[in-house]
Amino acid sequence: MQYKDFIDLDYVPKKDDVICDFFIEPKGISVREAAGGVAAESSIGTWTELKTEKSYVKKLQARVFKIEGNNVKIAYPIELFEFYNMPNIMSSIAGNIFGLKALKNLRLNDVIFPSKILKSFKGPKYGISGIRRIMKVYDRPLVGTIIKPKLGLRVEDHARVAYEAWVGGCDIVKDDENLSSQGFNPFKERVIKTLQKRDKAEKETGEKKVYMVNITAETKEMLKRAEYVLENGGEYIMIDIIMCGLSALQTVREQDFNLVIHGHRAGHATFTKNPKHGISMKVISKVARIIGVDQLHVGTVIGKMFETKKEVEENCLVLKMEMNGLNQVLPVASGGLHPGLVPALIEFFGKDFVIQAGGGIHGHRDGTSAGARAMRQAVDATLQGIALSEYAKKHKELETALKIWR
Amino acid sequence: MQYKDFIDLDYVPKKDDVICDFFIEPKGISVREAAGGVAAESSIGTWTELKTEKSYVKKLQARVFKIEGNNVKIAYPIELFEFYNMPNIMSSIAGNIFGLKALKNLRLNDVIFPSKILKSFKGPKYGISGIRRIMKVYDRPLVGTIIKPKLGLRVEDHARVAYEAWVGGCDIVKDDENLSSQGFNPFKERVIKTLQKRDKAEKETGEKKVYMVNITAETKEMLKRAEYVLENGGEYIMIDIIMCGLSALQTVREQDFNLVIHGHRAGHATFTKNPKHGISMKVISKVARIIGVDQLHVGTVIGKMFETKKEVEENCLVLKMEMNGLNQVLPVASGGLHPGLVPALIEFFGKDFVIQAGGGIHGHRDGTSAGARAMRQAVDATLQGIALSEYAKKHKELETALKIWR
Repeated sequence: MQYKDFIDLDYVPKKDDVICDFFIEPKGISVREAAGGVAAESSIGTWTELKTEKSYVKKLQARVFKIEGNNVKIAYPIELFEFYNMPNIMSSIAGNIFGLKALKNLRLNDVIFPSKILKSFKGPKYGISGIRRIMKVYDRPLVGTIIKPKLGLRVEDHARVAYEAWVGGCDIVKDDENLSSQGFNPFKERVIKTLQKRDKAEKETGEKKVYMVNITAETKEMLKRAEYVLENGGEYIMIDIIMCGLSALQTVREQDFNLVIHGHRAGHATFTKNPKHGISMKVISKVARIIGVDQLHVGTVIGKMFETKKEVEENCLVLKMEMNGLNQVLPVASGGLHPGLVPALIEFFGKDFVIQAGGGIHGHRDGTSAGARAMRQAVDATLQGIALSEYAKKHKELETALKIWR
Repeated sequence: MQYKDFIDLDYVPKKDDVICDFFIEPKGISVREAAGGVAAESSIGTWTELKTEKSYVKKLQARVFKIEGNNVKIAYPIELFEFYNMPNIMSSIAGNIFGLKALKNLRLNDVIFPSKILKSFKGPKYGISGIRRIMKVYDRPLVGTIIKPKLGLRVEDHARVAYEAWVGGCDIVKDDENLSSQGFNPFKERVIKTLQKRDKAEKETGEKKVYMVNITAETKEMLKRAEYVLENGGEYIMIDIIMCGLSALQTVREQDFNLVIHGHRAGHATFTKNPKHGISMKVISKVARIIGVDQLHVGTVIGKMFETKKEVEENCLVLKMEMNGLNQVLPVASGGLHPGLVPALIEFFGKDFVIQAGGGIHGHRDGTSAGARAMRQAVDATLQGIALSEYAKKHKELETALKIWR
């Protein structure tokens, strides 16, 4: 078969097909030819005709069924993929094709997975509704913080900062993405001492408080760490899903721990940032939901991260849309956030999301507790429809926050 | 601390520092400021000043110690990282920083790991010398093929094509990167039948033959598959290292199986292709060696893949250079290769590499065995210093191959 044999613009995708949406920018060949090449190399073809082809193989070919400018849709027969093996699925649709010399740029913008593949995965164990039940918070966004400085705090100070955040009003405290088990802050000691402070904060505030512990490591070590969190009364683990990889994420989810999985996406921008090349965060969001994270970072719209409003919208959409009955994933906005941004965040995200702020809480002039209070005040004001500047007149932590970050 | 506090051009890196080489293209700020931002966000800083800083944390700061145009070198104190936890290490130096809005492009071009970190990993169990001992081939490149069509062949046909490749002269037969355990070709049956054919081919040729079985899956399933290969007399496993991820790769290596690990890199080009953004393949090659793959795809210089000569040179260099005594990794050239390219490949790679050809063997007009013979003839001719066109006069398979692929 030749590349052109992989183009069939009259083809109507079957309900079991995997559908991929690519942006293709060819080098020295037509979009049509490039599209055929992508379909071939990601299914049963290669750059030259083979003597080992069998007639029964042909029915497994991918088909380019739509070409609009540089946007191309390809349908893959479901038989090409191993179910419940996300690394395998991605190795076809997001693998070698990106390295082809004949393509200047290639971007996988979306994937539609058929129900049979979706059903083979577990999806989120808790999702939005499960998390709301654990937190006993139903009517507002959750407020979280990342312990800052992101690395370097010793266990005692880490636990103390966590405590201050909780009593100030944070629901969630999380480790930063690159804190795992360094000498200055070893994993086990951190879990014990931070969860002790959680208990204290819960008692004092009467609110449910959670600690998201970063278990990112080699797979078996990661499982041990998850068990350690569980044994010591934690409800949440956090995983750097890009850095760990798809196999390990599947493995952690497969254990079916009674632990909410928070997915951090450190490293995603190495391949999501260029709108013409790589893989969209939308695809990663879908994949993470299918495997089964309960929460996921999706960008902020405002703040220090690069993503456009449209991108963040799409990321949220795929976490929440109907997808074969899979639980909905709670979006997490994180990166450069502070109380002054809360009205815009709530306008964009609604109530079902986590406002995750590090510097925007620990950078408050009066310290972490004041920062957390300011954040909760900003949420309260916004949900009551009161302008922050107005609410700040009677809430001094918010007033101060609005002065620090304009 | 502010971003500027992370710049120290007088700093002389310590022998235990992790050194990163970044290309930085800022948006709306100076390279200097952007470099400070990268150092801050990947160590102990953030976008705003913190009230939770401790004086003892400051000694963990990363330092920008060199700025030349857009190229920036940053030194990280070793204490920032968890040893033997590659996902953790990468989450700092190749994580959130790529998503910063203030950077148009950011590329991690190189990392120098200090001996203490290198020592914490296992590195390749076999490497070049171990593979040569297994193969009993010391004086020429190894010749390998990928079964083609890449997906779709049933087990019997898969095994037969493998057999034909081996008896024609291939040392190695490998699965393609997206063949794992699909319905048309289930894993266990494939392993059994293909290894039977390997035994037959070994007996008939008197040469050592190996089958590289793709075990890519969820981590625990991957370990089971590796054990299955071992129990059934296989010597090689293959892993899609990007798609599986770093945690799973560490896990497989940690088992210390008596199995050579072949690393496939499907998907790398999502973040290695743009020379201004992402992570270089050189870094991935180093990381793969440190964790412990024995063979790795590195590009072809010629053929269908995009990489420049310089890039492939660098990939090979880091697989072979002295690195705290770690075994050398055997580079694999793969992607659009055929016999006519062998002289250029050997000129570039020398003898210590694998010439891996799929279509360039199975596309031979007289079939797979003839294709494999043509490839070995091309290797023989080149090592004897004879022009292929000359050698082809007395070697008909090569003669035919040179006519098919010009």
